[in-house]
Amino acid sequence: MNIVLPDGSAKELEDGTTVADVAASIGAGLARAALAGIVNDEPVDLDAVVSDGDSVAIVTAKSDEGLDLMRHSAAHLLAAALTDLYPGVKFGVGPAIENGFYYDIELPEGASVSPDDFAAIEARMAEIAKSEAKIVRREVTRDEAREIFAAQPLKLELIDELGEDETISIYQLGDFTDLCRGPHVPDTGKIGAFKLTKVAGAYWKGDSERDMLTRIYGTAFFSKKDLEEHLHNLEEAEKRDHRKLGRELGIYMMEPMAGVGLPLYLPKGARVIRTLQEWLRRDLYERGYEEVITPHIYNADVWKTSGHYGFYHENMYFFQINEGTDEEPRYSEYGVKPMNCPGHVIIYKNDLHSYRDLPLRYFEFGTVYRHEMSGVVHGLLRARGFTQDDAHIFCTKEQVVDEVVAILELVDYIMGTFGFTYEAEISTRPDKSIGTDDMWEHATESLKEACARRGLAYDINEGDGAFYGPKIDIKVKDAIGRTWQCSTVQIDFNMPMRFGLTYRTEDNTEETPWMLHRAIFGSIERFLGILIEHYAGALPLWLAPVQVAVIPIADRHKEAAAEFAGELKAAGGRVEVMDANEPMKVKIAKAQSQKIPYMIVMGDKEVEERLVSVRERSEGDLGQWDRAKFIDVIRDAAL
Amino acid sequence: MNIVLPDGSAKELEDGTTVADVAASIGAGLARAALAGIVNDEPVDLDAVVSDGDSVAIVTAKSDEGLDLMRHSAAHLLAAALTDLYPGVKFGVGPAIENGFYYDIELPEGASVSPDDFAAIEARMAEIAKSEAKIVRREVTRDEAREIFAAQPLKLELIDELGEDETISIYQLGDFTDLCRGPHVPDTGKIGAFKLTKVAGAYWKGDSERDMLTRIYGTAFFSKKDLEEHLHNLEEAEKRDHRKLGRELGIYMMEPMAGVGLPLYLPKGARVIRTLQEWLRRDLYERGYEEVITPHIYNADVWKTSGHYGFYHENMYFFQINEGTDEEPRYSEYGVKPMNCPGHVIIYKNDLHSYRDLPLRYFEFGTVYRHEMSGVVHGLLRARGFTQDDAHIFCTKEQVVDEVVAILELVDYIMGTFGFTYEAEISTRPDKSIGTDDMWEHATESLKEACARRGLAYDINEGDGAFYGPKIDIKVKDAIGRTWQCSTVQIDFNMPMRFGLTYRTEDNTEETPWMLHRAIFGSIERFLGILIEHYAGALPLWLAPVQVAVIPIADRHKEAAAEFAGELKAAGGRVEVMDANEPMKVKIAKAQSQKIPYMIVMGDKEVEERLVSVRERSEGDLGQWDRAKFIDVIRDAAL
Repeated sequence: MNIVLPDGSAKELEDGTTVADVAASIGAGLARAALAGIVNDEPVDLDAVVSDGDSVAIVTAKSDEGLDLMRHSAAHLLAAALTDLYPGVKFGVGPAIENGFYYDIELPEGASVSPDDFAAIEARMAEIAKSEAKIVRREVTRDEAREIFAAQPLKLELIDELGEDETISIYQLGDFTDLCRGPHVPDTGKIGAFKLTKVAGAYWKGDSERDMLTRIYGTAFFSKKDLEEHLHNLEEAEKRDHRKLGRELGIYMMEPMAGVGLPLYLPKGARVIRTLQEWLRRDLYERGYEEVITPHIYNADVWKTSGHYGFYHENMYFFQINEGTDEEPRYSEYGVKPMNCPGHVIIYKNDLHSYRDLPLRYFEFGTVYRHEMSGVVHGLLRARGFTQDDAHIFCTKEQVVDEVVAILELVDYIMGTFGFTYEAEISTRPDKSIGTDDMWEHATESLKEACARRGLAYDINEGDGAFYGPKIDIKVKDAIGRTWQCSTVQIDFNMPMRFGLTYRTEDNTEETPWMLHRAIFGSIERFLGILIEHYAGALPLWLAPVQVAVIPIADRHKEAAAEFAGELKAAGGRVEVMDANEPMKVKIAKAQSQKIPYMIVMGDKEVEERLVSVRERSEGDLGQWDRAKFIDVIRDAAL
Repeated sequence: MNIVLPDGSAKELEDGTTVADVAASIGAGLARAALAGIVNDEPVDLDAVVSDGDSVAIVTAKSDEGLDLMRHSAAHLLAAALTDLYPGVKFGVGPAIENGFYYDIELPEGASVSPDDFAAIEARMAEIAKSEAKIVRREVTRDEAREIFAAQPLKLELIDELGEDETISIYQLGDFTDLCRGPHVPDTGKIGAFKLTKVAGAYWKGDSERDMLTRIYGTAFFSKKDLEEHLHNLEEAEKRDHRKLGRELGIYMMEPMAGVGLPLYLPKGARVIRTLQEWLRRDLYERGYEEVITPHIYNADVWKTSGHYGFYHENMYFFQINEGTDEEPRYSEYGVKPMNCPGHVIIYKNDLHSYRDLPLRYFEFGTVYRHEMSGVVHGLLRARGFTQDDAHIFCTKEQVVDEVVAILELVDYIMGTFGFTYEAEISTRPDKSIGTDDMWEHATESLKEACARRGLAYDINEGDGAFYGPKIDIKVKDAIGRTWQCSTVQIDFNMPMRFGLTYRTEDNTEETPWMLHRAIFGSIERFLGILIEHYAGALPLWLAPVQVAVIPIADRHKEAAAEFAGELKAAGGRVEVMDANEPMKVKIAKAQSQKIPYMIVMGDKEVEERLVSVRERSEGDLGQWDRAKFIDVIRDAAL
């Protein structure tokens, strides 16, 4: 009998060989590390028997599938512990999820579970884990299954929903038996470090007409170190929540009466947004972009021509305008813009263009409105209104690669400024698409070549491009390891055709220009939300809404404080003089909680000797400086 | 018999005295200058007889009414000339209008009038004027009138529409007799310098169901100099039309498909708008304002609370948003903002405020949308979408005057920067209004006192304030004498009450803050339109979208041109290198037509000696300069 290994090599084995045997035949180390197998693309248990011609891969803690599988087993471990601690408990489902697992249960009459009980449950889970109890699969008939789960009504319901010809498998772990497809790790000793995190209510099958079950969440990692890092990051993420910090730092507010998903930016938020915009604007001009400003509403004819009217209608807001008179009304439909592209296309079309004018790069900080269900809006990260740092590039086919390279260089500059690392994904032609094979080939190869020229590795998302062209998505990784989709470069075959864009070639013929959409931040406000979480609110000096708090110790130092604040402002600084009648320590604590980068304390000595006592928000006291030296720090941070 | 003169003095006169006699009784000069009279607030002819107790004023070329009256007589003069030149012509109406007059006529079968005929008509008018023909009033019965105008069907229609007890008066001027209320100048010798300007079609009574008449427009001034200045200004206004210049200079475009009254700003327009905004933004921060950014759409609840939903509904655009789910939709109405005030009020309300925090000054460059009929939109001057340089100030009652003084100082700084002079108008309490007498008294006196403290004269528009408070409007006068309403300061009693705004006083009680709306430009884009017309497109150096055109003479000078352009950009300059293969003169002509302030020519000598040849758009050749000297000019113009 022969099987095929992931590297393509064949291996001769005896009949009746299990996945575990395959691992052992490769090496003792792999045998110890083996958790499960993947046979012909299907995950299976270690004791699954392989057949002639099978492709077999061994799942370990290092393979992508390993963590999910182990977390699924951890859910069973939780269920086994609950079976011991809460006799009569009924079980719903218990899957692995992102970052962990849960189990939905129905507690016995009078029982309850709260985070206070987690220690006891975790202790019982640890005991079972330590015992290295086997997790054993068995295939059963429907009748056997109904008998085994006779006391588990939710499981019976699941059994009834299984198709006639489906294999019914159960997994046994100590006193707990589950209806489960598997696979699982071979024994509880292979389950790593775990922790219960949360308890919540959840409707059976997500149906609000059905019973409310108790959902216990947990997380698990192969190493204690990974678990601790994750728990630390969770705690960090909570501390860094931009909604909490956004309120505390005076960045933005939400007002239910004003509507859903529509943030209002407070003075400090506006300062940061304007600083980000001005910084990017200057950079874009240096890179040969030109700014344009387009309306927030357009006649529906624009959206019909662009195709949004048909394909994006439910995400848009439409209304009627009377283009006639009061006596003879004549209504036209208008729509609030969800994208800036049609405006830029209209501007392109306003002039005749020659190949000599190309590439043309129009950018706009364009505020767009897109419908989101009220249930999914989330602070600045998912809002109905946001401002794209949008640009559209019109160029020749030959210029596409250079333009994409330049965009990737810009991405690198911008993301590098904030200390983000990032990954690229190229999405290719989907099933339904417009454009010729040749266009898709050229477009997709151009994106790949641009990445190659930038030395940027990328994953391929096969078939995940837009119907109008392929794209590169950039996902950044923040200070606590979370990834965020921000920048995007999309090639668009659709708009130039729909609007009939042309340019005159060197041979004096008419050609359709190539068009790229691109955004670096994506949404400026969402990026601000990400920055707040990334920096835990302590925005870098150049971006901080207030850069310096000048703190006079006593009334007699106020004049000098105001004078120095004036000098800092003249150097381009954003300065607050804290001259309320409060103790210095209170003021420092306030400035610190506002994450103001520098606190300047002014007392007798400082005034007399024209010095300043400098305190940095994270480094603390930096001693007494010459005033000019500190002014230089602020001047250097100005745009 | 006694009459009362405008200075309040009484004058004793004999019965049967005419207005002309009154003028003569005052002085021979006035007798010569007299054109008509105003008796008991009613305009009358010079030969009208005055009665005991009448108040009598003499209308001369210097009084406001004089020019209108004379232009009305000029319309009769035109009609008299047409009667001579086009026998059988039928007359409609012929009023004085702003800047002139017109007469609507029905030409005899086969006849036509075009601007080519104006010279002949003007010549005949001049003859009649020179003859000092009397313009004589007569009151007639309805039957007499019908007989006199038997051949004038349009006049007959007007006679039929007169009320039963109305006095019917006719005026005779040579062979021409008109149905007319009057009054008129006593003879055609009193009609000043005139000119026919335009011929157009106009429906009888403005009704598209009625006949199309021929409307001949003219203008008239008391002096030839005034007429020439006016004609020159008209010509200038046409040359300066911001719609024409906006297109030629690449400032903005309109696209019918995109909608009505929705300009798209091209790169050069965006540059100017951003420069204006950034200039103002920096100034506002220095003046203690803080920027905020608020959404373009709000739930209708906001507009109901603010009152716009009821009082401003027809100017707004409303639509529905599904706040529920696809399965269970639940619609809320939202509206596009026509004003920024509710957003700023919501931000104020987000925090508790103490008297110590006041005044709070929030500003926003907020783009608003207001419905305008498609017939009245006009380039940037009247659009449906525009960006207000809006601010709202929340303060105590005692702070109002200081705040208004500061706003007027800001107006003076801004308008002075552009060389605008301006006038102020205070609008007072209208019939329908909210707020107590005391509030109106304090508000109106505060506005007056602020003007007084700024030494700013003002007119009073009695009863023309908003229902929610009095206001100051600022009208600027441009380079060719036209006035434009731009800045406004309004006190608002309404918003703070409707939204329940409060602050804590020094006595620890709750008070409603006073609220001021104010805008300096008004609409930034409209102000840009005004600036384009004011400067005839030649925006000042600091504001010009392109400040310098660098022109290499030959290919070998291109490198030096690019290098110098780079130095200028580093100094904050906006620079274009004109390196196309065209003759230098063509490039200079292009730069000149683009109204670029400086053209820098680079040839052998300039490159060798590191000089630049400087040409200024209006001063012409300024000779060869040291490079550093020119860079300084550009650096000084940067914000």
